[in-house]
Amino acid sequence: MELVGRALAGDRRALGQVLRRVEDRTPEGRAVLRALYPQTGQAHVVGITGAPGSGKSTLVNALALGLRRRGKRVAIVPVDPSSPLSGGAVLGDRIRMQDLSGDPGVFIKSMAAREALGGLAETTGDVITVLDAVGHDVILVETVGVGQAEVDIVREAHTTIVVLVPGLGDDIQAMKAGLLEIADIFVVNKADREGADSVARQLSAMLSLGAPIDRPPPIVRTVATTGEGVDQLLDEVEAHFAYLAASSQLHRLNRRKAERRVLELVRAGLLSRISRALGGSGEFEALVDQVADRKLDPYSAADRLITELLPSR
Amino acid sequence: MELVGRALAGDRRALGQVLRRVEDRTPEGRAVLRALYPQTGQAHVVGITGAPGSGKSTLVNALALGLRRRGKRVAIVPVDPSSPLSGGAVLGDRIRMQDLSGDPGVFIKSMAAREALGGLAETTGDVITVLDAVGHDVILVETVGVGQAEVDIVREAHTTIVVLVPGLGDDIQAMKAGLLEIADIFVVNKADREGADSVARQLSAMLSLGAPIDRPPPIVRTVATTGEGVDQLLDEVEAHFAYLAASSQLHRLNRRKAERRVLELVRAGLLSRISRALGGSGEFEALVDQVADRKLDPYSAADRLITELLPSR
Repeated sequence: MELVGRALAGDRRALGQVLRRVEDRTPEGRAVLRALYPQTGQAHVVGITGAPGSGKSTLVNALALGLRRRGKRVAIVPVDPSSPLSGGAVLGDRIRMQDLSGDPGVFIKSMAAREALGGLAETTGDVITVLDAVGHDVILVETVGVGQAEVDIVREAHTTIVVLVPGLGDDIQAMKAGLLEIADIFVVNKADREGADSVARQLSAMLSLGAPIDRPPPIVRTVATTGEGVDQLLDEVEAHFAYLAASSQLHRLNRRKAERRVLELVRAGLLSRISRALGGSGEFEALVDQVADRKLDPYSAADRLITELLPSR
Repeated sequence: MELVGRALAGDRRALGQVLRRVEDRTPEGRAVLRALYPQTGQAHVVGITGAPGSGKSTLVNALALGLRRRGKRVAIVPVDPSSPLSGGAVLGDRIRMQDLSGDPGVFIKSMAAREALGGLAETTGDVITVLDAVGHDVILVETVGVGQAEVDIVREAHTTIVVLVPGLGDDIQAMKAGLLEIADIFVVNKADREGADSVARQLSAMLSLGAPIDRPPPIVRTVATTGEGVDQLLDEVEAHFAYLAASSQLHRLNRRKAERRVLELVRAGLLSRISRALGGSGEFEALVDQVADRKLDPYSAADRLITELLPSR
C-alpha cells in the first residue's frame, strides 16, 4: 500500500501500477479500491461516445487541452470494447501522446475489453474510482462504437456527450434513436463539412418529437482538429454539472451509481462462485453432453442446476 | 401449443406469434422452447458482422436471394444492439421487404436490444432455436456494429462473416484486431470502390502475421448491390460448414454452444432470483445509502450481501 501513498502524492508510475493491480483484480487491487473509495466523489466524470470515424479521440484531446487551460487536472480513459481477445486500439493513443505527453496534469489510461467475468463496465468503474481518488478534477471516458457495452460504460458518467458527424449512413441514423436517450450534450463534429447543418436540424427535429424533458440536450458544433467550438462545449459540460449539483439530480445519480455498483459486484461475485462450483461438477458436464446431443433441452438443464445452487429461493 | 403445430406446418403468422412469446420470455414461450429444442441442430447458422456503413444489410439480402436459388429455406435475423431503450433500426428491414417479400422460403425476424436481464445474445439464441426447429436450412444473423454484444451474438453462429469496406478510418482499422479472431470468412464489400485492393492486402498481411491456424479465413470481394461475388461467398460459406462437419469441429462447436447456453441460463436464472431477493431487502437499500455517502465501499457492501445469499460457498 506504499504504492497507493505514492500514487496519491502524484507519482504517475505508481498510479499506473496501482491501476494495473485494480484491472487485474488481484486481492491487492481490491484492497486498494477499499482504501481509496472514501476519498472519491469529487471528480466530474464525462463520457464521450459516438460512431467510429466521428473524431472522438481528437475531440477528447481538444477537451483535455481546454480543461488544462482552465486549470483542471484531467484523466483520459479510452475504452475499446470492440476487441475482446487481442487487446484493442492503440492508434488514437499514439496520436494523443504527442499532444499531451509531458503535461503532468493529464493522465491517460487506456482500457481494452478482456474475457473478464466482471465485464468492462465494471473495471472501468474501478479505474474511475482510482483516478477520482487521486485528485483528477475531470475524467474523460471515451468509447469507440455504440453498442450495449458502450451504453453500460457511459452509465458511469455524470455527463454524456454523444458525437455525431455529417455524412454517415443509415445505420448511424438508426443509432440516434438509442443515443437520444443517453445524451446530455450532442456534438456535431467536423462541423465544417457539408451536411453539418442537416445533421443538427435532424437532431433538433428528433429531440422536439420526444417527450418533453427537464433539460433538452444542447447541440454544439465543433471542429476538433482546429479546436473550433471546444470552448463552448466545455462551457456546456460545466453548465450540465452545475445543473446536476443545483438540482437533486447529482445526489440521485450518485445513489443510482452506488446501487448499480453494489448490484454488479454482488452479481459478479456470485457468478464467479457459481462458475467455480459448476466447473468442477461432473453433473454439469453430463447435463451439457445431453443438451449437445439434443436429449435434454438447455432450459430444463439450467433449472436443475439452479435448484441445486439456490435450493431455498 | 396448437400455435407451435401451425408454425411447424409453415404458417408464418403462427411462427411470428411463437417468436414473440419466446422473446417476451413468457412461461408459454419457455414451454415452446422446451418442446422445440429436440428438433433443432439441422440449420446452418451464419453470423454477419462489420462496421456501420459496410453494406451488411444489402449483402445479407443478396445472400438470401442466392440461397433461395440454391433451394434453401432461409431465415434472416437482423440484430440491433445499439438501441437498448427505444427499439432499434427498421430502415434496413423496409428495404429488405421489397426484395424478399412474397417469398415463402424467406422469413425475417428483427431483434432490438431491450432492458432484458438475460441479454440480447441469449434471446437471439432462443430465436435461432425456434427458426432451426421449424426447418430453415440457413439462418443469417446480422449485427449492426462491432461491440462486445455483437461478438456474443456472433458466437451463436457456426460460420462468421466479417464485412469490411474500403475508405473507413482508423477506428475501423483498429477493430480488425478483434475481428481477425472471430472471422471464418472475410468479405471486402463495395469492392468496386477505390481502396478495395488495399483493404484486402492489409487483411492478408495481418492474417499472415498471426499464429498459423488450421484454416485461414478466405477473403472474398463482393459488390452486394449488384450481386457480384455473392455466389463465390456462398460457396465459401458452404465449404466452411462442410469443413466443420468433416472435422470434429462441428461437434465441438455444438458442445461449446450447449455449455454456454446452459451456463447463461443458470446465470440469468440466478440473477433474476437474486435481484428479486435484493429488491425487497431493506438491508440492501441501507447498504447502498452508505455507499452513496462514501461511508462504506461497494466492495465490502457486496461481500456482505454475497455471504448472506450463498452462505455455504
